[in-house]
Amino acid sequence: MTTTTDNAAASAQTSAPAITDEEIFTAHEGGKLSAELTRPLETQRDLSIAYTPGVAKVCTAIKDDPEMARTHTWTGRLVAVISDGSAVLGLGDIGAKASLPVMEGKCALFKSFSGLNAIPIVLDTNDADEIVETIVRMAPTFGAINLEDISAPRCFEIEDRVKAALDIPVMHDDQHGTAVVVLAALTNALRVVDKSFGSVKVVLSGAGAAGVAVAKILRDAGVADVVVLDSKGIIESSRTDLHATKQAIAAETNPRGVTGGIDAALDGADVFIGVSGGTIDEKHLPNMADDAIIFALSNPNPEITPDIATKYATVVATGRSDFPNQINNVLAFPGIFRGALDAGATDITDAMKLAAARAIADLVGDDLAADYIVPGALDSRVGPAVADAVQAAAAADGVAQ
Amino acid sequence: MTTTTDNAAASAQTSAPAITDEEIFTAHEGGKLSAELTRPLETQRDLSIAYTPGVAKVCTAIKDDPEMARTHTWTGRLVAVISDGSAVLGLGDIGAKASLPVMEGKCALFKSFSGLNAIPIVLDTNDADEIVETIVRMAPTFGAINLEDISAPRCFEIEDRVKAALDIPVMHDDQHGTAVVVLAALTNALRVVDKSFGSVKVVLSGAGAAGVAVAKILRDAGVADVVVLDSKGIIESSRTDLHATKQAIAAETNPRGVTGGIDAALDGADVFIGVSGGTIDEKHLPNMADDAIIFALSNPNPEITPDIATKYATVVATGRSDFPNQINNVLAFPGIFRGALDAGATDITDAMKLAAARAIADLVGDDLAADYIVPGALDSRVGPAVADAVQAAAAADGVAQ
Repeated sequence: MTTTTDNAAASAQTSAPAITDEEIFTAHEGGKLSAELTRPLETQRDLSIAYTPGVAKVCTAIKDDPEMARTHTWTGRLVAVISDGSAVLGLGDIGAKASLPVMEGKCALFKSFSGLNAIPIVLDTNDADEIVETIVRMAPTFGAINLEDISAPRCFEIEDRVKAALDIPVMHDDQHGTAVVVLAALTNALRVVDKSFGSVKVVLSGAGAAGVAVAKILRDAGVADVVVLDSKGIIESSRTDLHATKQAIAAETNPRGVTGGIDAALDGADVFIGVSGGTIDEKHLPNMADDAIIFALSNPNPEITPDIATKYATVVATGRSDFPNQINNVLAFPGIFRGALDAGATDITDAMKLAAARAIADLVGDDLAADYIVPGALDSRVGPAVADAVQAAAAADGVAQ
Repeated sequence: MTTTTDNAAASAQTSAPAITDEEIFTAHEGGKLSAELTRPLETQRDLSIAYTPGVAKVCTAIKDDPEMARTHTWTGRLVAVISDGSAVLGLGDIGAKASLPVMEGKCALFKSFSGLNAIPIVLDTNDADEIVETIVRMAPTFGAINLEDISAPRCFEIEDRVKAALDIPVMHDDQHGTAVVVLAALTNALRVVDKSFGSVKVVLSGAGAAGVAVAKILRDAGVADVVVLDSKGIIESSRTDLHATKQAIAAETNPRGVTGGIDAALDGADVFIGVSGGTIDEKHLPNMADDAIIFALSNPNPEITPDIATKYATVVATGRSDFPNQINNVLAFPGIFRGALDAGATDITDAMKLAAARAIADLVGDDLAADYIVPGALDSRVGPAVADAVQAAAAADGVAQ
């Protein structure tokens, strides 16, 4: 456990010593979470209040008015981070148990960036029916549900069905967290190059969880011309190999009816957004429009490395912390869930996601520059600003209580 | 919310001000648990270790060796407190959500008395098949499972099936936690009156979750003569109204073939143990043997109040904190689960429960007296002593790793 190669990039920016495997494993000993008491439980009186006989009063009150569970149990601030371990980081389908460190990390991010309690729940099944059924059965346990690292296309159906079945906030973060931060970043990138949502040609490479959600939020934000590619090429109506979600993309994007591959897609494009896990050769880039924007978000290996992307684009973003403009979900999900829970929202609506993106973009303010289109991942202003915007949007959208 | 009558008993012993409803509700605001970080998550380096890219190393290690989840996630010290809310305190079937305050309280007890992390999971179904299926699907989330407040007789089948399906510690505390503490208390009560397990006649009133488990642990401890009653009278083989669990009790208890009701059962009995939820009239008690023992454990109203019980018995115990000899599950479950998890046990065996009971009884030591047969509920020696004994028993029983 002394190799450092894979982790070197993460430390490059600060010139700190490279992170060693030993350091990683030591930091994970005993896990990253603990369940703690909000009040001491030391005396007989404490016991009689928090447990029998006193607790019966609170149970009875919740039975009479289930809304009281929000204020008198921890569920009002509790997010379940639920995964089946089928699409974890770049590791793929590693199963429930092996996904636990990621889910614990996600829970830790919830606490650090929004003050919410979060607990990992990993499921030993990949069957969509079983996943939905299991989540619905245990739903009274939680205040909100963050679906995580569930592979496409099952993730679309699972999220839709869980949202429909429950009246609490539910969001698959790999889809919508990414989409919200991409929209925030694109909002500001377009300001830098003085172009508008309505006029730009956008190429989106990748039609997995993130790609589908990015395509949708771009349409919701008013981008008229989006061309989406999967591993087979441009998604368009003449293709016969598309599952339902991609058929919908074919119907709702690509207004110019472009066919073919990445070359055809990028010809004259103003914006490239990569959420594909693959890479793109430099030779495809010269035909992009002037003042192009490249978001190469595959991690740890961007579709186009920043040193190449900057030759063809005015604004470049990646998913990495060691380059400017990091597109990181942590800018979105803590505040989205905090705002939704603070609102007592029964859903996370499209309007709430758009509000989150606007709040993230607006924080950049007058500091806007080609290398500063989104706040840094550790910017402590972001969580509260997003939460406030989402809470207000929930009220405006009629899903708050 | 200013009535105090119901809570007065809990404060009687200390002469502290009575606990008010307002105090109870205030103490529950925001819930009793929080999820906290074991290490700070503040810098980019922290993020790169606890989340991407560093966390991938730990995921891969667990995929290759699932045992590493015990040491490198919080599951090695994590108990799920799982209920369907069907038999909560004296409130009955109040449902999943209304049971949450009790489950949070139980989790708080786990933390306070054994240092374990515990999280409540409440299930919106009373169907045994669905409960078992749901628990098995989410089992990789936890290190151990404490089943709680599930009504009889479903609780027997559910516990049996979950134990069989999983290779982690599983225990229905309403059954076995109670049984362990009753056995500990009876061990010492028999020392006070100088009688032996093998010679005493025991009457056990109540054949629900606790009663069934008490009957079993008494047999395991060597008590030969136990007569069990349910609400219809003595459980014996000629009865035709018995479900499977009670049929087993009929076959395995009552060696003298006593029939009838409480009068017939108590005639010459050395020990009465009540876990029935009902009450017993004083007129049935005079025919008990000399130096009788009465454990009247229904809560908050004992089957026989201590002022009456002491007229007929040398040793009296209840479930209440405001009388001597409180039989409280908190003496058992924190240490049992801590010992089982420390052992890496794949099961909680009968030998581990017997070891827990011995450890609790032995702590009383030379202070043994008719009014001191078990340690107090707040005695901080108990959790560690039980954990050590259970860990050793797990190793001896071949279920440790």
